[in-house]
Amino acid sequence: MALLVQKYGGTSVGSPERIRAVAARVARARRRGDDVVVVVSAMGHTTDEMIELAQAVTGADNPAAEHPRELDMLLTAGERISMALVAMAIREEGVDARSLTGSQAAIITDETHTSARIVEVRADRVRETVDGGCVAIVAGFQGVSTTREITTLGRGGSDTTAVALARALGADRCEIYTDVDGIFTCDPRRVPDARIIPRISHDEMVELAQSGAQVMHARAVDLGAREPALDIRVLSSFVTGPGEDDPARGTLITEHPMVREDQVVTGLASARGYAKLILHALPAGMRTPTEMLGALADAGVSVDMVAESPQGGGRVLLQLTVREDDLPRAREIAAEVAARLGGGGAVEERTGLSRIALVGRGMSGRPGVYAQAYRTLMDAGVDVEAVSTSSISITLLVPSDREDEALRALHDGFTLAAQAEAPAAAAGVG
Amino acid sequence: MALLVQKYGGTSVGSPERIRAVAARVARARRRGDDVVVVVSAMGHTTDEMIELAQAVTGADNPAAEHPRELDMLLTAGERISMALVAMAIREEGVDARSLTGSQAAIITDETHTSARIVEVRADRVRETVDGGCVAIVAGFQGVSTTREITTLGRGGSDTTAVALARALGADRCEIYTDVDGIFTCDPRRVPDARIIPRISHDEMVELAQSGAQVMHARAVDLGAREPALDIRVLSSFVTGPGEDDPARGTLITEHPMVREDQVVTGLASARGYAKLILHALPAGMRTPTEMLGALADAGVSVDMVAESPQGGGRVLLQLTVREDDLPRAREIAAEVAARLGGGGAVEERTGLSRIALVGRGMSGRPGVYAQAYRTLMDAGVDVEAVSTSSISITLLVPSDREDEALRALHDGFTLAAQAEAPAAAAGVG
Repeated sequence: MALLVQKYGGTSVGSPERIRAVAARVARARRRGDDVVVVVSAMGHTTDEMIELAQAVTGADNPAAEHPRELDMLLTAGERISMALVAMAIREEGVDARSLTGSQAAIITDETHTSARIVEVRADRVRETVDGGCVAIVAGFQGVSTTREITTLGRGGSDTTAVALARALGADRCEIYTDVDGIFTCDPRRVPDARIIPRISHDEMVELAQSGAQVMHARAVDLGAREPALDIRVLSSFVTGPGEDDPARGTLITEHPMVREDQVVTGLASARGYAKLILHALPAGMRTPTEMLGALADAGVSVDMVAESPQGGGRVLLQLTVREDDLPRAREIAAEVAARLGGGGAVEERTGLSRIALVGRGMSGRPGVYAQAYRTLMDAGVDVEAVSTSSISITLLVPSDREDEALRALHDGFTLAAQAEAPAAAAGVG
Repeated sequence: MALLVQKYGGTSVGSPERIRAVAARVARARRRGDDVVVVVSAMGHTTDEMIELAQAVTGADNPAAEHPRELDMLLTAGERISMALVAMAIREEGVDARSLTGSQAAIITDETHTSARIVEVRADRVRETVDGGCVAIVAGFQGVSTTREITTLGRGGSDTTAVALARALGADRCEIYTDVDGIFTCDPRRVPDARIIPRISHDEMVELAQSGAQVMHARAVDLGAREPALDIRVLSSFVTGPGEDDPARGTLITEHPMVREDQVVTGLASARGYAKLILHALPAGMRTPTEMLGALADAGVSVDMVAESPQGGGRVLLQLTVREDDLPRAREIAAEVAARLGGGGAVEERTGLSRIALVGRGMSGRPGVYAQAYRTLMDAGVDVEAVSTSSISITLLVPSDREDEALRALHDGFTLAAQAEAPAAAAGVG
């Protein structure tokens, strides 16, 4: 008998039919003898509809900025609806179930409305519910602050609730049900050859999520990575029939991903909307990048990549990668800083860039991956505008109109389809 | 500086525009220097839509019966949405406001899901909110049980919340905003001459509400009637312009209704769907009505009126008025009891009856009201099928197809329009 935490996202509880499918799965687990804690998001587009209502009432584009406390109060109605309906549907299956709000489940957060951080989970009431033979349905995304205010966790909130609860309860399994089959080697809409990654480490998953992989939010994975690390399975709630209860389906995020010796890259992710600012003839020396980056950070402009190169005559060329939205502000600040530093030269810009991340523990300490990525893109005729690396990733900036070709070339070049398809054979190698 | 409790029903917060109108009124009161506690219902048809969702998910016609706890959890999302939106709209008026759930406002109830009774209101947090210069928006209809379960109060719940809060806070005024202009002398859709009753006592209002007047639920009025009695004003949230803040508009429910000496009837109410069971030749004696009423009560059949009349030969005729829905069960039980008592005679039925209540403190101790009612209906050619009285009411059963004529005749005969129109002149008389 295992204790499972299962999280169902908005599309997984998006209609009465979907809710009944969730209930059927939970009931099967219960009949197998497992204890189940279910974490739910709001149904389908409920959250968007509520934000629209708030906009209509207030006339404000961003009610979160003006009325954060009340927006949290409003949005938490969403999970309340879905969790009550899921509990009813499970009870209709003949299995006892009770829904618990974020307050009732004692998901204690700080007081930052609309993006609160969980500070503690006092799981006593959830545990009592489960110990009483009941399925506990817990509202995702919401908590209660130490001053008894209703809070929401912001983006990735329901996944975070599930992971935090699984940790607090010492759950045997944490399953994140979603509308796709798992984490793919690359976005399958971009690369038809993309395959599900059977196992991936937390740090690889964080890197993929931060680089544009949509399925799971980095924040929840990061929480799962803390010692002792929690295994998280990501899988589809839309699979029915014989394979539905296959314990190996989807992607397992784990500290023991059992990579193949020859596996260099685990997955690719990409995102559009980047730009590059090229600042010529700035004064050489540490002061230039230090002041430039400091001023941009103070203005809330996040710099993704930095490259400095000497231009002779005590002058350097500085290249900064920023979000396209931030470009006007970045340009203005760069001009101010250049003037303060004693003047710069020409300023160039490149817009319409995409950021592609190659993520894999296997590249750590392995020379030539960099070179292989460059060669692959050169053979595909794609220019690399910038590059940076970490121990488990290489990030490349390419023109957005070549993004899909670049992804397909890299997916092919690093044989991602083949290695994802042979996980069983690889199990002994890792 | 007064402390006001204002309750807004579903239609009064039924759209972003309506919510802004509520906010504008609350802000005006605040700027006048009053403290305001707002109690809100769910928006428009939200509750009905949620019940439909629950039906779709469970396949049950009546989810309240099978999943009372979860239905409460579901429905309480309704006020959460409206109260957050109302709070935002008030804040947009430049007035500070905070919404509080039934739990946060400490509306403590018993554990009867879907129809909980309030056992205590610990108004500390509401008072702190108000003392902090903030408008408190409290969710109507909902509470929290002593075992920390979310409950709902059932029919008339939001009115009850408002009255209970006004009592607990010692509010100076309790205002129930609705979609009609006040309590009418009779349903204006039935009797075009109907007028707003300017002042009415709690017991009269309870009687009218129980007899079919829709505007306010008897339960909330009854709570207001307890010592020391709370004045409750019922008025429209749809009035705008110069008259909007007239302190005398609508109907005041009060222990000091200042009735005119010549005012016999304060108002009329009616309801359809009644039937009469006529049982011939039952054994005379106390045992017959006692066993008959006992058996019907045990079966959950509520008997509205009872009349017994001797038929000679130690036999009596018993006439029972019941809801038409209950007629088949009542008939069956009556036959069983008759057999047990030693047999009865013929059984007749009348269906399609309406129950009309004439309500007025003025009829207490005044002979001839009964006779006047009968004469009025006789002149109008309406047959009276049954009658009963209390100290402040006369209830008459008439054929439903003559209900409107009966109401108009009684409204005319007791000069209700005239007396409602002359409240000011009457003020000194009561």
